[in-house]
Amino acid sequence: MLKDGERLDDLHRDGYKLIQNPKMFCFGLDAVLLSDFARAKPDETVLDMCCGNGIVPILMEAKTQCSQFVGIEIQEYNVDMAMRSVRYNKLQDKIFIEHGDLRELDKLYNLHLFDVVTCNPPYIQNDSGAANLSKEKAIARHEIMCTLDDIMHSASDMLKYGGRFYMVHRVNRIVDIFELSRKYSLEPKLLRFVHAMHDQAPSMMLIEFIKNGKPHLEVMAPLILYAARGVCSKEFHDILYNTREENEE
Amino acid sequence: MLKDGERLDDLHRDGYKLIQNPKMFCFGLDAVLLSDFARAKPDETVLDMCCGNGIVPILMEAKTQCSQFVGIEIQEYNVDMAMRSVRYNKLQDKIFIEHGDLRELDKLYNLHLFDVVTCNPPYIQNDSGAANLSKEKAIARHEIMCTLDDIMHSASDMLKYGGRFYMVHRVNRIVDIFELSRKYSLEPKLLRFVHAMHDQAPSMMLIEFIKNGKPHLEVMAPLILYAARGVCSKEFHDILYNTREENEE
Repeated sequence: MLKDGERLDDLHRDGYKLIQNPKMFCFGLDAVLLSDFARAKPDETVLDMCCGNGIVPILMEAKTQCSQFVGIEIQEYNVDMAMRSVRYNKLQDKIFIEHGDLRELDKLYNLHLFDVVTCNPPYIQNDSGAANLSKEKAIARHEIMCTLDDIMHSASDMLKYGGRFYMVHRVNRIVDIFELSRKYSLEPKLLRFVHAMHDQAPSMMLIEFIKNGKPHLEVMAPLILYAARGVCSKEFHDILYNTREENEE
Repeated sequence: MLKDGERLDDLHRDGYKLIQNPKMFCFGLDAVLLSDFARAKPDETVLDMCCGNGIVPILMEAKTQCSQFVGIEIQEYNVDMAMRSVRYNKLQDKIFIEHGDLRELDKLYNLHLFDVVTCNPPYIQNDSGAANLSKEKAIARHEIMCTLDDIMHSASDMLKYGGRFYMVHRVNRIVDIFELSRKYSLEPKLLRFVHAMHDQAPSMMLIEFIKNGKPHLEVMAPLILYAARGVCSKEFHDILYNTREENEE
């Protein structure tokens, strides 16, 4: 199952494991936080854009009773790795990984098909610094193959009326995100900032948008990762090891 | 100096005091936080929109070496109270209170005249609940005499190229604010959320916009008001009693 340079990581979810290649792009904290933040109800369908090695659909499958997950990814090697992880976990009847361009999702799927869309997109707007990265890492981190506008446009196209879009992003893009959200009828409804420590500026944010939702944003209490240097907060520990009380029911 | 029902409150700034009438609308925490957050350099000119009883220009005068402050207020009794507070503090050469409608500021002043604009606007978009308030409180709290769009439009009209706009508002209006900010070329550059306690959702936010600024928002570490129930945080105490170290130089 594993190819050269790959490793198998434990996801602390139902015994699930994930194939990763540290030379390419390993999943990060942001994917774990996004999967924890996103809400999906039994029998809903979920699309993950920029799915990479499949981390978000696999974590979402573990925490929900959704009927079907689709992950779309533009880099062929990531698609191959994600498909092997899906098979390793025996999830091939629930999770479908597509090799394709999210700007052309309408060629693969009917519009307004999904209940939920998730995305952990490339964060960096320009390509400054991308030249020092491998092509794979550059595409994962920089808006080279798709822009924020492309992502929000496609998310809106693919969502049902009233469907939910979940995105993790850097805090300094919040104005761009909120401007585009109104352009594409994705109303921000829930916003949570992620801080390393409670007295530090937030590094990331998690946003829930409702397609065609009415304007009213709730900003949640901050998500604090570390109670002290090197010491996870209880909430962050519960997210990492899947021991949140609401998940234990 | 005082009329029926009025009182004289100590501002903990250079011995300044403020005339208030508890039956009308007393200044709140938001005005104090806005004045602390706003930056103004020596010899700059500052316009405060919706100035009420004049609290923001008076606090800003105490902390800066600006050349001139203008406060505009639509409610005649507030204008009268603000003017008396300005005279009480012997600031009539620095602070000018205008009775007028901020939507018609261009009839009073040239466009693009001010370096800085501040505003503690009415927070509530619709008039639900306004019927239970006195007319004065309803106008101060609800978007009856001006909307958020009016405020951001006028702020942009009155600011010089590169000028700064400071606003305090409720967090649930952030999407509306950021959408309007791009409409009126007021780029959000600095955002700070205000939380009662560090593990609670933020109640208010402070925003710095730069007229014609380049897109890049910094989200600051949160401003936490209480370290424990009834115990001010050090920073909040320093704001209330004007003992921030940078103010003591």
